[in-house]
Amino acid sequence: MKLHGIFPPLTTPFAGDATLALDRLRENIGKYNRTPLAGYVVIGSTGESVLLSREEIDRVWGVAREAAAGDKILIAGTGVDSTAETIERTNRAAALGYQAALVKTPYYYKSQMTPAAELEHYQRVADAARIPVLVYSVPQFTGLALEADLVARLAEHPNIIGIKESSGNVQRVTEIIHATPPSFQTLVGSATTFYPSLAVGAVGGVLAIANALPELCVELYAAFRAGEAGRARALQHRLLKPTIKCLAEPGIPGLKHAMDCLGYYGGPPRRPFLPLTDAQKREIETTLATVAAATTARS
Amino acid sequence: MKLHGIFPPLTTPFAGDATLALDRLRENIGKYNRTPLAGYVVIGSTGESVLLSREEIDRVWGVAREAAAGDKILIAGTGVDSTAETIERTNRAAALGYQAALVKTPYYYKSQMTPAAELEHYQRVADAARIPVLVYSVPQFTGLALEADLVARLAEHPNIIGIKESSGNVQRVTEIIHATPPSFQTLVGSATTFYPSLAVGAVGGVLAIANALPELCVELYAAFRAGEAGRARALQHRLLKPTIKCLAEPGIPGLKHAMDCLGYYGGPPRRPFLPLTDAQKREIETTLATVAAATTARS
Amino acid sequence: MKLHGIFPPLTTPFAGDATLALDRLRENIGKYNRTPLAGYVVIGSTGESVLLSREEIDRVWGVAREAAAGDKILIAGTGVDSTAETIERTNRAAALGYQAALVKTPYYYKSQMTPAAELEHYQRVADAARIPVLVYSVPQFTGLALEADLVARLAEHPNIIGIKESSGNVQRVTEIIHATPPSFQTLVGSATTFYPSLAVGAVGGVLAIANALPELCVELYAAFRAGEAGRARALQHRLLKPTIKCLAEPGIPGLKHAMDCLGYYGGPPRRPFLPLTDAQKREIETTLATVAAATTARS
Amino acid sequence: MKLHGIFPPLTTPFAGDATLALDRLRENIGKYNRTPLAGYVVIGSTGESVLLSREEIDRVWGVAREAAAGDKILIAGTGVDSTAETIERTNRAAALGYQAALVKTPYYYKSQMTPAAELEHYQRVADAARIPVLVYSVPQFTGLALEADLVARLAEHPNIIGIKESSGNVQRVTEIIHATPPSFQTLVGSATTFYPSLAVGAVGGVLAIANALPELCVELYAAFRAGEAGRARALQHRLLKPTIKCLAEPGIPGLKHAMDCLGYYGGPPRRPFLPLTDAQKREIETTLATVAAATTARS
Repeated sequence: MKLHGIFPPLTTPFAGDATLALDRLRENIGKYNRTPLAGYVVIGSTGESVLLSREEIDRVWGVAREAAAGDKILIAGTGVDSTAETIERTNRAAALGYQAALVKTPYYYKSQMTPAAELEHYQRVADAARIPVLVYSVPQFTGLALEADLVARLAEHPNIIGIKESSGNVQRVTEIIHATPPSFQTLVGSATTFYPSLAVGAVGGVLAIANALPELCVELYAAFRAGEAGRARALQHRLLKPTIKCLAEPGIPGLKHAMDCLGYYGGPPRRPFLPLTDAQKREIETTLATVAAATTARS
Repeated sequence: MKLHGIFPPLTTPFAGDATLALDRLRENIGKYNRTPLAGYVVIGSTGESVLLSREEIDRVWGVAREAAAGDKILIAGTGVDSTAETIERTNRAAALGYQAALVKTPYYYKSQMTPAAELEHYQRVADAARIPVLVYSVPQFTGLALEADLVARLAEHPNIIGIKESSGNVQRVTEIIHATPPSFQTLVGSATTFYPSLAVGAVGGVLAIANALPELCVELYAAFRAGEAGRARALQHRLLKPTIKCLAEPGIPGLKHAMDCLGYYGGPPRRPFLPLTDAQKREIETTLATVAAATTARS
Repeated sequence: MKLHGIFPPLTTPFAGDATLALDRLRENIGKYNRTPLAGYVVIGSTGESVLLSREEIDRVWGVAREAAAGDKILIAGTGVDSTAETIERTNRAAALGYQAALVKTPYYYKSQMTPAAELEHYQRVADAARIPVLVYSVPQFTGLALEADLVARLAEHPNIIGIKESSGNVQRVTEIIHATPPSFQTLVGSATTFYPSLAVGAVGGVLAIANALPELCVELYAAFRAGEAGRARALQHRLLKPTIKCLAEPGIPGLKHAMDCLGYYGGPPRRPFLPLTDAQKREIETTLATVAAATTARS
Repeated sequence: MKLHGIFPPLTTPFAGDATLALDRLRENIGKYNRTPLAGYVVIGSTGESVLLSREEIDRVWGVAREAAAGDKILIAGTGVDSTAETIERTNRAAALGYQAALVKTPYYYKSQMTPAAELEHYQRVADAARIPVLVYSVPQFTGLALEADLVARLAEHPNIIGIKESSGNVQRVTEIIHATPPSFQTLVGSATTFYPSLAVGAVGGVLAIANALPELCVELYAAFRAGEAGRARALQHRLLKPTIKCLAEPGIPGLKHAMDCLGYYGGPPRRPFLPLTDAQKREIETTLATVAAATTARS
């Protein structure tokens, strides 16, 4: 299974009363289906996974499965701290038709989550999973990063096919690519270092900002693939501020507001996320206007 | 409600097949009932809370409630990332007879978990909770610490009665005590700084090591209360190595092995915790032998 | 040599044109001589050591030596990154009549400053030094902390007589005291955790805030020594805000302003320190007024 | 002044007795003169700047000045904590014929080294300097990084012409390039992220590993400039392990050993650096053999 290109980790739409708004999810996916996105990650960190009940997760998986076009690869976010529950979630997603599972590192009990513990966790999950596993390292949420030596060990497992590396540390990305065979697929989760990561060998991106700006992400990927270094650099710079101002700083509430501004359904995040202030909203709107202007000017 | 003294955050016993071993929990509590422990925290971090299903948590709460002696204060660990689910868990614990809820900070989406977001989360939980709330700051697991300014704001809420401060940062403990009224109760979660924390005004400890060494913890607390500074210092030093070697370094698997050595049921932890190596077990046993020798020599 | 009690690490007075104001240093020391301070550290971090030339350091050492009363212990701050230069400075201070040297960890090349490198550095310095050596761990400046295992090794050297531990980490202080023989003297550099550190066995403090508030520091030390736990706690709390507001937050410029307010010569810091803003000055003055009020109210 | 291409920050050669070995410096520079290196940084962190006396620094500057070929740009490392001394060193280097000064951030008093303090420090240095200034951010040594907002402010000064950004954080490099005008030159100090940094707009590298492997660094730079993305990626991967195994892990002692292996004079580092163990030396030799093999195989 080739995981090249751009995969947005889908946001989970909520109604004003914080219940699931599954029709809105369907509509968003309908729009994404008409773009060259490679596929979707459903129930990742950006999907507010830790704020959903097990039953809600199943419903989101089900709706996304139905709404996704047939040529889109479907990846389910299934990792939790418990090894057993990660396996249970993974095989539930497999039963629902997902093609791969994105499994974040267990992390709560940090000092004991040694490379040896992570290795054994992933081996057990990969042994038991009925679909291929992508490991997922996201230190900004978990406080714990997978290093290249360990990833090289994980890459030996026949059912572990790649990694989503979200640290934004390009040296680490390079080390992982260096330490793993060409068949092991390294995707990155950081849009602000997407082009540099492609330059050293990453094959794609699971980019939250692609929920709001799928075309820009796809265009950057295409420019890189076409060997147009100058254009790739320019697009990376164009992606920089929106990623910082609509996502990195305001988090998921900001991303959802950007989506609202750009014709998708963003809607409110769940608590404990605070609603955006008016000033935060305006900053997002101003940033998006600049991107639009740059895009228009260019064409 | 006075929360003075020592509260072990109970470990959750599992059988060899990783299912709940509720009889063992009952037996452990039966033994603790005969000590001067002030009460129990049920389903805290030490209880492997993040490795249990909602249904399992209810069963553990139920059994602990039945097994606890009438004079022991019962505190339920109810905090998760979702505000709504934290409220739901808290009121479920209230319905089961728990007297207070220990609510850890939401933390997964770290950059958005600003003091303002934490404040509003806790206010919503405390507004809705049918029992008093203890806030819980445990940066070694969450990567996020509550600072004194925010705790002072939280202390203004009539249903927030105290804090479990587990950072081990004694300056921060002092600042919190300084910034809050005398009615606000500061307990600490770090056994290695328990006496220094009492010295600056903490009223008790929620100490994981008290699962294995309840008498030593109680003795230290009593020495402090009796104004015996030299004895308190000596006991703090006696508690140092067991806490590091049986808990801080090996984590919950180590604590459970120490319990097994000392006549309680520890048993295996759940995955992704690795089982202890023989070398780790021996280090725990050696450390405990030294404590026992010191205790015997003294008496 | 007993290093019990309070040692201010003296600030270095500058005139308005940033040249040394040695008369002012003489005056300050004259005032401190009339207090029960145990001695002085000359050319520590608080003395803006890294902003002085070698020749200036010699002049400061010389003047302080002359001005200090005969019963005050004189400690020279002599540690720099280079082992050879540390030895040279140490023996220069010895020649000028200093009784001990405070030697901070080399730290610039952090990844190579392993425990083995620190050990050998200190052994070479202690071998060559004509006066006893106090090791000095100050991670807030150096990014590097000495842990108890290494300090235990250092304590075996006959010419290493103690440590100034400035991390403010009371568990670490406890571990160091636990790991070293009673003859090894642990002083702390953190005024906000001074009483808790004494409670676990520290024998004194090298406290920057003692430049401005020597009596309060001495009083806290005396209360502890007299076994007056309640009074020690109250004094620790009284010391908390001045230390944070006059020192931890504004740094040496703040401390110098506090000294100016309290009858000592503080004067301007050297660049790159910025001069205090008016708002910063007012906050210091307000804080000091509160301490004075508390002190008056009490007497 | 164009600072494009590769600048090694020269190591400082010492004899067996730790005195300066200036002839060896002359010989090394003689060899570098015959490569397409763009110039030299003399007395940077890699030059063991903090282990040299002022008088030694002048001698090294003088010899390097004489030995350097006329087409090589000469940059002096002149930054220390004191603003006044930084100016003095900078103008001393100017008087000796250096064309630019590399000025690292003051950092010892970290909490006070705010963006405002750094801004004023650099403005004062740039105002007084008789040669252009490159700012230098190297958080692995200083614990303090310059962020893009501040660099944009610094770039407004007519005498500040660029930055050496050594954090290895490619997002930060991108942000700096994004925030500064095209005339402001961003060089990076991290060889492990050199190609990704060039890809987003960096113009050159001040690369310590270029002391040992100047050709490989130059070749990577040339491949990038020629638009050969595949070759640049391959060369970046070839540079990865030598940089980690000969420099990042063993530090300057490792780099010097690699130089000894490759026909340059490395020699011993000064204390407190420990000499390499035999195992460390072998790892460096093995790593270099692999690079040589790869290079030979290719040609």
